[in-house]
Amino acid sequence: MHAYERTIHFADTDAAGVVFFPNFLAICHEAYEESLAAAGLELNTFFGAHEVLVPIAQASAEYLRPLACGDRISVLLSPKPAGADGFAIDYEVRRLGPPDKLAARVRTEHVCISARTRERQPLPAPLAAWLKASV
Amino acid sequence: MHAYERTIHFADTDAAGVVFFPNFLAICHEAYEESLAAAGLELNTFFGAHEVLVPIAQASAEYLRPLACGDRISVLLSPKPAGADGFAIDYEVRRLGPPDKLAARVRTEHVCISARTRERQPLPAPLAAWLKASV
Amino acid sequence: MHAYERTIHFADTDAAGVVFFPNFLAICHEAYEESLAAAGLELNTFFGAHEVLVPIAQASAEYLRPLACGDRISVLLSPKPAGADGFAIDYEVRRLGPPDKLAARVRTEHVCISARTRERQPLPAPLAAWLKASV
Amino acid sequence: MHAYERTIHFADTDAAGVVFFPNFLAICHEAYEESLAAAGLELNTFFGAHEVLVPIAQASAEYLRPLACGDRISVLLSPKPAGADGFAIDYEVRRLGPPDKLAARVRTEHVCISARTRERQPLPAPLAAWLKASV
Repeated sequence: MHAYERTIHFADTDAAGVVFFPNFLAICHEAYEESLAAAGLELNTFFGAHEVLVPIAQASAEYLRPLACGDRISVLLSPKPAGADGFAIDYEVRRLGPPDKLAARVRTEHVCISARTRERQPLPAPLAAWLKASV
Repeated sequence: MHAYERTIHFADTDAAGVVFFPNFLAICHEAYEESLAAAGLELNTFFGAHEVLVPIAQASAEYLRPLACGDRISVLLSPKPAGADGFAIDYEVRRLGPPDKLAARVRTEHVCISARTRERQPLPAPLAAWLKASV
Repeated sequence: MHAYERTIHFADTDAAGVVFFPNFLAICHEAYEESLAAAGLELNTFFGAHEVLVPIAQASAEYLRPLACGDRISVLLSPKPAGADGFAIDYEVRRLGPPDKLAARVRTEHVCISARTRERQPLPAPLAAWLKASV
Repeated sequence: MHAYERTIHFADTDAAGVVFFPNFLAICHEAYEESLAAAGLELNTFFGAHEVLVPIAQASAEYLRPLACGDRISVLLSPKPAGADGFAIDYEVRRLGPPDKLAARVRTEHVCISARTRERQPLPAPLAAWLKASV
């Protein structure tokens, strides 16, 4: 279980005065990047265009509370294996208080594929190690 | 059924060379805006901070094919009522060919609430009319 | 001279209710992409990571009028050569009326370089042809 | 002089594999927000739609080095008064090393206006205090 903290930026917001709904997914992806980097994965290499890719196959979000510019948030991520060639991550986005309030639940599902054939591949060893250590 | 067409911009992409996954939701929201505007709703008023809000309560996406800068896409949206105070929209994002290819399925769920109390409200009349005409 | 028209989307806006200032640059880049595509350049190839890159070395914007969600805009771009290995583009962003109103002036300066050495290179032939035809 | 540090996220990048050029402005705005918050200004109130606005009238950027996902950066901001009703901020964006490398120079110019009349106004007291303390 990893927690990622940051402040809501003006760039995250929209004309309704709160975080634009797709940006919750982007913020959760930041938490995923942070977690991978903490495990020693080199992000620029990992997320670049390569032979083996780990794209997101599904994503979903449940929005419980709006977030505004200046809010402090914490994102807790819980990765879970899904077969030999994929994993899911559940995220809880909390607005830090006191009291803390759950703002959103997000889930992303990742599959490892060959860039050339688009066929499923086993997870690369560093990612498999990250996943094993994260569960 | 409404179709919204546009080109994938460089700004939509990420370092993997394809559209960043949260941006599919933003692109679908453009199709929703286009549909509302075509029905005569004034977007800046509708999406601003007001007494009655229609935030997105849930969103989900299934990613089937990557999209790259310069791709022409079409977004088909199918709104459906969900009680007196909400609705859902199913979107199909297609990469235009020939042949056209389904790139993503997206769903957003919207609820009408009071900005002050956060309690559910019936849809405003122009939105209810748009929904009725769209089904 | 090329004109690019589009509607301001909710995603372009921020919590002040208008287009977030960096997004004017992104919108102007869309007009640049449109102009290149109209000249037959394949965008995904051109903007990808390659041996020869044409990054933006400088950008500036003068903001004259705010733009809101639903506003219709037109972007006029005027490319100008700058030596054998670069060019500048002046953009005028207008809010369509009637009457039309100038909303921003933007300028981007582009240089052609080798990805490997970062040294300046002559413009690739298709880009040089686009530039010649655009002036 | 304030320094703001953060990591380059995947969301900041584009299909060329580096930070999309308008996003440098958004990142510098984060540093501005951080600086205001550190001085006790409440960001959601300050940046919302109000009677007195402090929009950006001009922005410019000089791009010296690309930044990639995972890069650690530091943004140094230097605010300067510009009359009774405005100020400019110079930013230096550095990629943290060792050795640190200057990646971009950015400048934003801000003017205080009435939302109703769009006429210039003296800076609100908390902002004037922030400016005085920052120079």
